[in-house]
Formats: sequence, C-alpha cells, structure tokens
Amino acid sequence: MQYVINYFKKAGIGINGTRSWDIQVHNPKLYARIFKEGTLGLGESYMEKWWDCERLDLFFEKLLSLTANEHPNWQMLMTKLRAKLFNVQSLNNAKKSVQKHYDLGNDLYLSFLDPYNQYTCGYFENTSDLNEAQEKKLNLICKKLQLKKEDSVLDIGCGWGGFAKYAAEHFGCHVTGISISDEQIKYAKDFTKGLSITIEYMDYRNMTGKFDKIVCVGMFEHVGYKNYRLYMKKVASLLKDDGLFLLQTIGRNNTVTMANPWIDKYIFPGGMLSSLKQIGEATENLLMLEDFHNFGLYYYQTLLAWEERFRKNCHSLSQEYDETFCRMWRYYLLSCAGSFKARHMHLWQIVFSKGKNMYVSIR
Amino acid sequence: MQYVINYFKKAGIGINGTRSWDIQVHNPKLYARIFKEGTLGLGESYMEKWWDCERLDLFFEKLLSLTANEHPNWQMLMTKLRAKLFNVQSLNNAKKSVQKHYDLGNDLYLSFLDPYNQYTCGYFENTSDLNEAQEKKLNLICKKLQLKKEDSVLDIGCGWGGFAKYAAEHFGCHVTGISISDEQIKYAKDFTKGLSITIEYMDYRNMTGKFDKIVCVGMFEHVGYKNYRLYMKKVASLLKDDGLFLLQTIGRNNTVTMANPWIDKYIFPGGMLSSLKQIGEATENLLMLEDFHNFGLYYYQTLLAWEERFRKNCHSLSQEYDETFCRMWRYYLLSCAGSFKARHMHLWQIVFSKGKNMYVSIR
Repeated sequence: MQYVINYFKKAGIGINGTRSWDIQVHNPKLYARIFKEGTLGLGESYMEKWWDCERLDLFFEKLLSLTANEHPNWQMLMTKLRAKLFNVQSLNNAKKSVQKHYDLGNDLYLSFLDPYNQYTCGYFENTSDLNEAQEKKLNLICKKLQLKKEDSVLDIGCGWGGFAKYAAEHFGCHVTGISISDEQIKYAKDFTKGLSITIEYMDYRNMTGKFDKIVCVGMFEHVGYKNYRLYMKKVASLLKDDGLFLLQTIGRNNTVTMANPWIDKYIFPGGMLSSLKQIGEATENLLMLEDFHNFGLYYYQTLLAWEERFRKNCHSLSQEYDETFCRMWRYYLLSCAGSFKARHMHLWQIVFSKGKNMYVSIR
Repeated sequence: MQYVINYFKKAGIGINGTRSWDIQVHNPKLYARIFKEGTLGLGESYMEKWWDCERLDLFFEKLLSLTANEHPNWQMLMTKLRAKLFNVQSLNNAKKSVQKHYDLGNDLYLSFLDPYNQYTCGYFENTSDLNEAQEKKLNLICKKLQLKKEDSVLDIGCGWGGFAKYAAEHFGCHVTGISISDEQIKYAKDFTKGLSITIEYMDYRNMTGKFDKIVCVGMFEHVGYKNYRLYMKKVASLLKDDGLFLLQTIGRNNTVTMANPWIDKYIFPGGMLSSLKQIGEATENLLMLEDFHNFGLYYYQTLLAWEERFRKNCHSLSQEYDETFCRMWRYYLLSCAGSFKARHMHLWQIVFSKGKNMYVSIR
C-alpha cells in the first residue's frame, strides 16, 4: 500500500496534513482499496466517507499533474473492453444513459445553474460572475455562427432550451432543439413558449431537414468514438452548403476509447472525450475546420461556481438527494475542475463549414 | 480524349470560349496529354504554350470544385510510391529541395514580395494592400504569441529574416532564425544587422536550446508526413514548459502522403500538405492545441497580389528567367490561388502550448 502513499507524496499531497489539498483519512483500508480499484475506488471511498479533503479541485490538479505515465489499472481495462465489444452509445443505450443523468430531476440542475440553464462551460472573459459568463458564452456562439434573423438553426442536444431562447430572443432566428431527455424536453418547451422555437424528442441519427446553422454544445461527449464519423456525416447532411456548424465539446490531449471508470459508473454512463486526431479523422472530406478556441481554464471557474451554488442549495433539495449523493456530486464537480486546471481536459469551441461560404473567423 | 473535354465542360470551362476562365487551345494534342499525364501534363503543356487562359485562378477554382471524386492517375501514383519508399525529406534531400526553390535567387522573390519579404499568406483584415496585410500578419503572430521584451524566440525556417526583424523591432525580444537556404541566410544576416537577432544555418533536427516562444511560418509544408511526429517532438523539446508555439501552415481537408506532381517537380520538391488528423496524431501528448485560425481565403488575395507584382516586374529580372520560367511561375501562383478559393487548400495559423501556462486565446 506504500505504492499509493508514495504516489500521493510524489504529487505533493499530504496524509492528514493541514494544507487545503491534503487528505484526511478516516479508514486506513483506503490505500489498499485505491491500489485494487484505481480511480473507481478513489471516488467510491470518498462517497462512503473513508476520506475527506477541503479543496478537492486542488487535490485533483496535483494528482493529475503526475499521471502522464500512469498505468491503466484493472478497472480501466474492464471499461475499455466493454467499449470495444459493444456500441455503448447505440440508440437504445443512448436513451438509458441520458435517463441516468439528465432525467435525475430538473430541480437538481436548476439549483446550481444560471438563468439560461447552461450545463456547459461559461466564457469568463472580463467577468467572474457565472450568469454573465454564460450569457457571454451564448453571445460568442451566436457571433461565431454569424446568426441572423433569416437563419434556421438546429441545436443538437438542446438541454433545457437556454441556447434556443437566447438565440431567438437576441437574433430573431428560428431554432429547432432536439434532445432525448424527457425531463429536459418538458422543461424546454415551457421555457421557450411564445418564441420561434421548436423542441422535439429526437435522436440526432434520426433527424432530417436542412439548416443554415447547426450548434451542438456539450453533447458530443455522449456520442462515443465508434459513432464520431457517423455523427459528422449526419451533421454534414443536415447542414446547407453555405452553412456553419459550431461544436463545443470537452476534449483530451490524447486518443482514448473509454472514460474514467468512476465518471462512467456514477455520472455519465457511456460518456467519452475525443481528441484532435479523432475529430480530424471524423471530419475528413466532410467538414472544414474554420476556427478552434480552447478555453478549458474557464471550465475550472465554471465548475467551482457550480459547486459553490450546489453546496449552498443542496440542503433544500428533495429527500432523494441524500448525503452520499451530495458527496458524489461535489466529487464529480471538483474532480473535473482539477482536471481542467491540470489541463488534462480541455474545452474546445470549434467552427466548421462545408467550404461553400467565404468564412474567415472573427479576431 | 472526350473524357478530358467532358471534364472541362462539367466544371463550366469552355474550349476557345470568351469567358475569362475559358481556355484557348493552341495544340489539339492537349487533351491526350492531360489524359495520359494528369496534372503534370496540364502544367507542362501550359509552360510549353499549348494552351492559355486569361484568369488561371478562376480556371483552377472551377476545376477543383469537381475533383472530390477524381481518381489518381498514373503520375500521381508514381509520386505516391516514391514518397512511400523513401524519406523524401531526409537531411540530405531537404538541402537539395531547398536549393531548388529558395536558392533560385533572391532577386526573383524580392521582385514580388513586400518589404518584410513575407513569402507566406498575408492577413487581409480590413485592407486590400499586400504590404499592410503582411504587417498585420506579423503583428497577429506576435500578439497570439504574447511576445514580450524578455522572450527568446526561435524562428524555424526564417526565410529572409522578415519575422525576426519585425519582432525584434516592435517587441524588443531576441530572435534566433534558422534556415537551410544559403541564399536566404546571406540576405537575412544583412537584413537584420544591428538588431538582437541571430541567423544560423541549421536543420531543425539538429537544433538545441530552450526558447520561450517558437514560430514556424510556411516551413511545415517541407517537413513530410514521415517526419511530422519527429518534428513535433523536436519543437516540444525546444520549447520551455510555459512557452508557446505558433505554426502557420497550408493544410488540406483530407490526409495524403504526396503533393501535386507538377508542384512537386517544378516548384516544391518534397513538399506536402498536412491534414488535421495528421497534426492531431503528431502532437498527441506533446503539445496542446490552444487556438486555430483558418484564413485560407486571404491566401487567394496574397497570391493574386504576388502574381500582379511578378507580372509587372518579371521583364526586369535577369536573362535566366526566360518566358517558360515566367509561365511556370504564373501557373504556380495562380493554380494555388484557385485552390485556396475552391477551398481545396487552407491556411492554418495554430497556437500550441505545453499546458503549463494559463493561456486563453484572444478574441
């Protein structure tokens, strides 16, 4: 078990120390569990209160600054094998995955999100306020897409309708939002009532039509590496020749075909982060890269703001969100925050065209 | 030969027509030659005056809007085979390739370039003047790299010293420029005299040291697909942990391992354009993509401006540049212009980091 202790030491993390990123160990079996179960055991033992940490985000930032040469453990290999054998993001599984996360109950999300219900990275340019950062993000997307009144816009994975509302209100265009979360659709329909917006229950694979602009913010993480090419083919077929497509997604600096096992089990079943190589492969001869903007450091700020709001509001949530759930949720938000700060994860906002317009990106 | 004529027809190009992009055929054997020799024959027959065209750029734009399903011809396959069997951009070959192009004689290049001798795409944002566009490009690079006085900057493939001069003059930093063209080095040393600039004869593979910023503008096209990973490893090793690397290169929308045979034979021996997938592969776990800016449409403007200047000045060049050479050079500039307009080629300006700084790109 010395292996695990040395590992923490190497990362500059103390056991029962006084610095905010040090861990307080309540159960000495922790090290054996981490050794055996890897990142899954690390997360589950936190949920079960075997250990605590004042600043989980800093703990993860330090830990992840070391992991470049980390060997995959048994749990990771199992997840990898499952991903190889099955299409985890098949039409049937996609529905189940979405139910697990996004149908958790709108009250949970609304307890920590901004008024536009943006469950993706905000744009903290010249602001430290979450609500403002989310409006800036929405505005940045609309500007990059050169949105105008006459545009028909498709929003793949429309969430609670925030982008649709912002775009319709500020740019006067018509937005079609699709999602496969019943809870989100119910909410989004109500949220966008009276505006030039259509909200539909629809898997992207079954979508038809032609749009001037397509936007996909924080949904590509659920597509799965086996479907990247299919996804891009579908987008290209739904986009008019002179259209623009904006993809906002979390990305990685290397190619993998699996997610972190704890995240996969508790937060995003079937979720997966893409690499530049995978996006390049998936878009070859289909879509042309016009503009690519990495603002992953703003996801660090976004996640910290969400965690702060969640911590303040979680006690007023319904009984079903017990203490274990709250520990799980905070662990999720803060481990991701640390990962962005350590630059293991990135936030990419990418504009593609089909090459039939005269697009030069705004600087 | 009807195949070739139909091909032109399909692209909207008339034979002996009156539109500026129609071709005037002086030798009826043209079609058979194109059929047999592909793009190589097309270019060589132009050099030999078998045909003419008022607006070669538009001719190529139209032609290239069709070629998505074009089959590689025999000439292309030969080039491909050569590239597979040999490392065309080995240390020895690199020297030969560079001699063929960049040692042609400085007077040729200076006859059409701007005062900073920028032999790459200008940034025609709010200007239509080449000189201004090149200064804007140089300024854009310096801004994206966040250049400051204390920076040590490496310029891989420094050309005639234009970037080094601009950066040293405007930002006060020290620039080391490396090149393997004797003619360029001689000129660059003189051009940058008295400034905080070192110009060296050096292949990037042999370079040593650590730099705050690295810039490589219009040289990656000579690296060759077999060396992309090696190149990125070298850059990463030369870059400080908190440094930034700006790569400006021409790119393609799909992955290839060869160049256009005519361009390969007459203009850039061993030249080759990379794809997003190849750049993604080459940088995995080494460099993080921070910012990607496609302004290929400005290369169209750059090439037209060069061609106009070249046409005006070519008669005052020395005897060695005869009429065939001038036709070759105009064919090169205008076929590339058409290719950028048709968006077969792109101009990418990319910023990478090693993830150890807090970089968020400027918008």
